Amino acid sequence: MKLFEETLRSIGGLDKDAVKRAQARLDSRMKPKGSLGKLERIAVQFAGITGKVFNKADRRCHIVASADNGVIEEGVSSCPLEFTEIVSEAMLNEIAAIGILCKSIGVDFKLIDIGIKGGIKRDYPNLHIEKVKNGTANLRNEPAMTREECIEAIETGIRTINNLKDNYDIFSNGEMGIANTTTSSAVLYALTGEDIELIVGRGGGLSDEGLLKKKRVIKEACELHKVMEIDPVDVVAKVGGLDIACMTGMYLGAAAAKKPMLVDGFISGVAALAASKIAPLSRDYMIATHKSEEPGMKVLLDSLELDAMLHMDMRLGEGTGAVLAYPVITGALEIIKKMKKVDEVYELFA
Amino acid sequence: MKLFEETLRSIGGLDKDAVKRAQARLDSRMKPKGSLGKLERIAVQFAGITGKVFNKADRRCHIVASADNGVIEEGVSSCPLEFTEIVSEAMLNEIAAIGILCKSIGVDFKLIDIGIKGGIKRDYPNLHIEKVKNGTANLRNEPAMTREECIEAIETGIRTINNLKDNYDIFSNGEMGIANTTTSSAVLYALTGEDIELIVGRGGGLSDEGLLKKKRVIKEACELHKVMEIDPVDVVAKVGGLDIACMTGMYLGAAAAKKPMLVDGFISGVAALAASKIAPLSRDYMIATHKSEEPGMKVLLDSLELDAMLHMDMRLGEGTGAVLAYPVITGALEIIKKMKKVDEVYELFA
Repeated sequence: MKLFEETLRSIGGLDKDAVKRAQARLDSRMKPKGSLGKLERIAVQFAGITGKVFNKADRRCHIVASADNGVIEEGVSSCPLEFTEIVSEAMLNEIAAIGILCKSIGVDFKLIDIGIKGGIKRDYPNLHIEKVKNGTANLRNEPAMTREECIEAIETGIRTINNLKDNYDIFSNGEMGIANTTTSSAVLYALTGEDIELIVGRGGGLSDEGLLKKKRVIKEACELHKVMEIDPVDVVAKVGGLDIACMTGMYLGAAAAKKPMLVDGFISGVAALAASKIAPLSRDYMIATHKSEEPGMKVLLDSLELDAMLHMDMRLGEGTGAVLAYPVITGALEIIKKMKKVDEVYELFA
Repeated sequence: MKLFEETLRSIGGLDKDAVKRAQARLDSRMKPKGSLGKLERIAVQFAGITGKVFNKADRRCHIVASADNGVIEEGVSSCPLEFTEIVSEAMLNEIAAIGILCKSIGVDFKLIDIGIKGGIKRDYPNLHIEKVKNGTANLRNEPAMTREECIEAIETGIRTINNLKDNYDIFSNGEMGIANTTTSSAVLYALTGEDIELIVGRGGGLSDEGLLKKKRVIKEACELHKVMEIDPVDVVAKVGGLDIACMTGMYLGAAAAKKPMLVDGFISGVAALAASKIAPLSRDYMIATHKSEEPGMKVLLDSLELDAMLHMDMRLGEGTGAVLAYPVITGALEIIKKMKKVDEVYELFA
């Protein structure tokens, strides 16, 4: 609780002077003003985050939070529970999607077991066992976790960033947890009050019948827990998951540490929204990356007031969309550093 | 003319068997079917192009075609003509956007002077002087070039790919040519017959008055040259530019050589459309990358039946959008190679 409160107190806004200097530099380069679109906005945001016009994003770390969800009992997922553990271990062995992409793109990969039921049996240097509990309770009948457990998971996310912040320029996150589009849809529904039809999708590949059930379970759980009347931490505790709580902590930790954090798709984005509801300035440290196929992604990005750069029709999670954006981020930081002004270019070549 | 005709004859479709094998492999991996969206489609298309399920895209070459456009006399651009030459040379020195991004992302860069007025005075190992003429004529009054000149520029594009095809797995292109959103808009208008209001935009940053003039010049030129009644080569000759013709040739050459070629934004896309009108199967070798801010981009992608993965609000040209997609392509090819089947993963970890 102490770390959580201290972190919230230490989150400040962007360095406005650095933002101005970065924008002025870009506007003076030899190109139509604003013609590099989001590349320019990324470079300016980075300047605001670090206080410096020139930045690097070469030391990249992707952190997956894995946990199980009790709500799987309700038949809201097309995959069995054990996939959480098995796919997590496959990631660590670079034979599941995110492990492969991190390797391909040049991103360090870490996995936090924040609540896998059972857990990975072998040791891996980049596996961090920080289990808050053995999966959450079934949110249809009782709160997924207590407020204390939720804050413990959030603090684990914060502590993870604190431990890594000196070694990395930028972070991203992702998750593994069967049934976590149900929990994240419930959190999004609670935080925005939007029409459930616009929020809930098929996740990994639910049938028509499964989809109806998923919507019903979410509505009933949110009524049971009176989520519209509670604060964001309690929302994540009652209808969220340990993975979401841990990622929420990562966003808060990154903002406090003045490090940018990429937002992946739906579940990572819901954690970002929870963080921004807890500490609105944390949003300034987030960079949206891809627009997941999950229908709630539109509601989510609108709520975050963020805009995704990649439209890949992906819906796998794990942070697979986020890591694809790293080379774009690095490109943006090279542009602001290396482009020249018109008169400089004339002097060289005219 | 001989090379052009031979190239058209040698363009065949995708290897359907390889497409099937790649799709089957992806469908059997441990992930919800289709959940990696465009990553899967890229891997499948690659298989169709090369005939092999496993491919690499590590040897990457970006080729910029630079040329001047006589239509600049009409006041359709916010930049002076000499920018074509000066920015081209800045690219070669890695201080203009595309040179910087190629270096950052790991892409070889080459520049073809296909018709810069005057031309670059210094030597560069990656500068290829293949000037067809010293810039085009003013298309408002006369054809931009003759059909013979247009085919010469197309053949230069084809020959460029033929010379490089053994050294590269994949290509992309871009352009530099002040006033070339006017020429490309005119070609798009001629090839699609769409409403001019949906096609013509501000390019680098035209004023309201300039925009009106640009639309009028394009309409009048297309009426003068009766573009609706002529074939795609004549369209590019009469209202296009040498850069567009050369890039059209690159797409045709890549398809004949069975190499994928990335489509950048508006101007590169118009060349892709011209290539697909000349040889419809060439479209199977194209991969769309980014959705430029130029308003005609929607008409263009719809006509090509392609979908862009990057939405960066960019409108600089040079191929700056295309090169951002290379790491995504490589990621897609790693995914199909390294992901395992459910039973393989179970065997390892369950």
